[in-house]
Amino acid sequence: MEKVGKQTIKFNTPPSIVECASIVGPKEAEGPLAKYFDKTLEDEFWGEKTWEKAESKIIKETVNTVIQKAGISASEIDCMFAGDLLNQCISSSFGLRELNIPFFGVFGACSTFVESLSLGAICTESFANKVICATSSHFCSAEKQFRFPLELGNQRPPTSQWTVTGSGSAILSKDGTGPYITHITPGKIIDMGIKDGNNMGAAMAPSFADTLITHFSDTGRTPNYYDAIISGDLGYIGKDIAIDLLKANGYNIKTNYNDCGVLIFDKENQDTHSGGSGCACCGTVFSGYFFKQLKEKKIKKLLLIATGALMNSTSSQQGESIPGIAHAVSIEI
Amino acid sequence: MEKVGKQTIKFNTPPSIVECASIVGPKEAEGPLAKYFDKTLEDEFWGEKTWEKAESKIIKETVNTVIQKAGISASEIDCMFAGDLLNQCISSSFGLRELNIPFFGVFGACSTFVESLSLGAICTESFANKVICATSSHFCSAEKQFRFPLELGNQRPPTSQWTVTGSGSAILSKDGTGPYITHITPGKIIDMGIKDGNNMGAAMAPSFADTLITHFSDTGRTPNYYDAIISGDLGYIGKDIAIDLLKANGYNIKTNYNDCGVLIFDKENQDTHSGGSGCACCGTVFSGYFFKQLKEKKIKKLLLIATGALMNSTSSQQGESIPGIAHAVSIEI
Repeated sequence: MEKVGKQTIKFNTPPSIVECASIVGPKEAEGPLAKYFDKTLEDEFWGEKTWEKAESKIIKETVNTVIQKAGISASEIDCMFAGDLLNQCISSSFGLRELNIPFFGVFGACSTFVESLSLGAICTESFANKVICATSSHFCSAEKQFRFPLELGNQRPPTSQWTVTGSGSAILSKDGTGPYITHITPGKIIDMGIKDGNNMGAAMAPSFADTLITHFSDTGRTPNYYDAIISGDLGYIGKDIAIDLLKANGYNIKTNYNDCGVLIFDKENQDTHSGGSGCACCGTVFSGYFFKQLKEKKIKKLLLIATGALMNSTSSQQGESIPGIAHAVSIEI
Repeated sequence: MEKVGKQTIKFNTPPSIVECASIVGPKEAEGPLAKYFDKTLEDEFWGEKTWEKAESKIIKETVNTVIQKAGISASEIDCMFAGDLLNQCISSSFGLRELNIPFFGVFGACSTFVESLSLGAICTESFANKVICATSSHFCSAEKQFRFPLELGNQRPPTSQWTVTGSGSAILSKDGTGPYITHITPGKIIDMGIKDGNNMGAAMAPSFADTLITHFSDTGRTPNYYDAIISGDLGYIGKDIAIDLLKANGYNIKTNYNDCGVLIFDKENQDTHSGGSGCACCGTVFSGYFFKQLKEKKIKKLLLIATGALMNSTSSQQGESIPGIAHAVSIEI
């Protein structure tokens, strides 16, 4: 691999995404992408006593599913990248503790899935035969941790997003027939001073714009190079801001740009306001929907840019703004 | 680089650790290693209003210091790995948000420093010229988050450890005169069922033993190959368990093995019970003390194994055990 431009890495022998798996919760099971997921759950607990334990079970079973679908054994995996939204990433640690695979914990908030794919791709080109990348989030555990007890029945402002319950996982390999990870553009932390924890799209859109503009400038590509440019979870409001920010910088992405948070729920009928969010938003929509579109050659060139809000409830209580980050991965057949 | 054995990576053009920096709090400033740190603070706040903001300032200034000491500009750094113990790793995100460097957030609890060095080394051999690795922890923010409000004045059991206040940071480079990272052995998650959150040494010692035994087996090395084998923060109790576990597997590490948590405080006079802990324990003791020992050739072959407890307060309240992880990095001149 080699660095091109300011912050993009180009792979000389691009790693192949050989298999993906996704499991989602009951609300996602009623959304427009339901049929693309490997498994949809009937309730948020899946037989566990707490939401945290349920989230751990979801990531565990998603990783088991992707290993099974790839027809390999866990011992063939060289290492694993995973992270989630729970404090100290316990969903990943507890869910994946029995796998017996070298483990790198990552935290990029909702950008975690693409952060994992990026580091996994670096490892695959450099020393690993196979790497697993995984992430999860859970509406109930996230609301409880970041906002209010669900039992309060708080009103949600129109700018708020709905954390996706689910997990997405991918296996990267030196061998395989694609789709291939050809470039990554890791993002910088961008903080434009947004303080509204119920408007994550606005907080993260500037980091999306920064990474995307840098990717174009580093690679010499333009928006129309890609069949689809997909952000992780900017939602409806963040998506509009992103289009405006790109336009102000001379790029028109209106025709081929969309957002996983916009795609996963039906805005009119599911009461999800600005759309989906959470690590699993990008994780499940890519693993469930876009991976299949690439395999079936309906999309040939995809730029996936997951966005994360790097805050916690303490930082908000202490008056801090919300730093954003966005990592991009170029996936081509 | 290439994989050797089950889970070790050997570097063919080993990255050089070109510079390190460390800043510590007032208690560490009274410990036996005080003179080795770049800066020691007079109080836990350093002019900030909260412990969390102070911790962010500590990691920020440590990273600024290492860049300054290396005589380079921030724009020469290709990417950065950092993480900490605060929920959603806010010390790193907030402390490093102004640096304008591509950022990979990592979470390995107290193993974070060596996790960062490991991923940093992979990037340095494969595409990067220079990478920064950093971590922090803070006694007050950690106690508040993981245990009890400090104002309660709770008694600490004899098995408990004292979270180090401070930050350690290193710059890796393709060029340089060493010390060099020659091998890494990333660890698996190991959970032996320990549930006592006040006995982290016992929870983490099995993962230390697993990674160390695997490192020996993968590389064909024996304990006496190294001038020093150093764990991150097993403390006095975990250190004894580790020696026993290695002995039971046929390895005698008693003569050249020590622990950063044992070294950083004076057990008799500082009331730190089982010793130091926290991401900054390994981070500051390596960056402050061992890096200088290597530069001065007093130690020529060091195996640094940082250990982490992958739990949070919710998992403990829900009756879960404490999964451990340990990552090893072989550093040689």
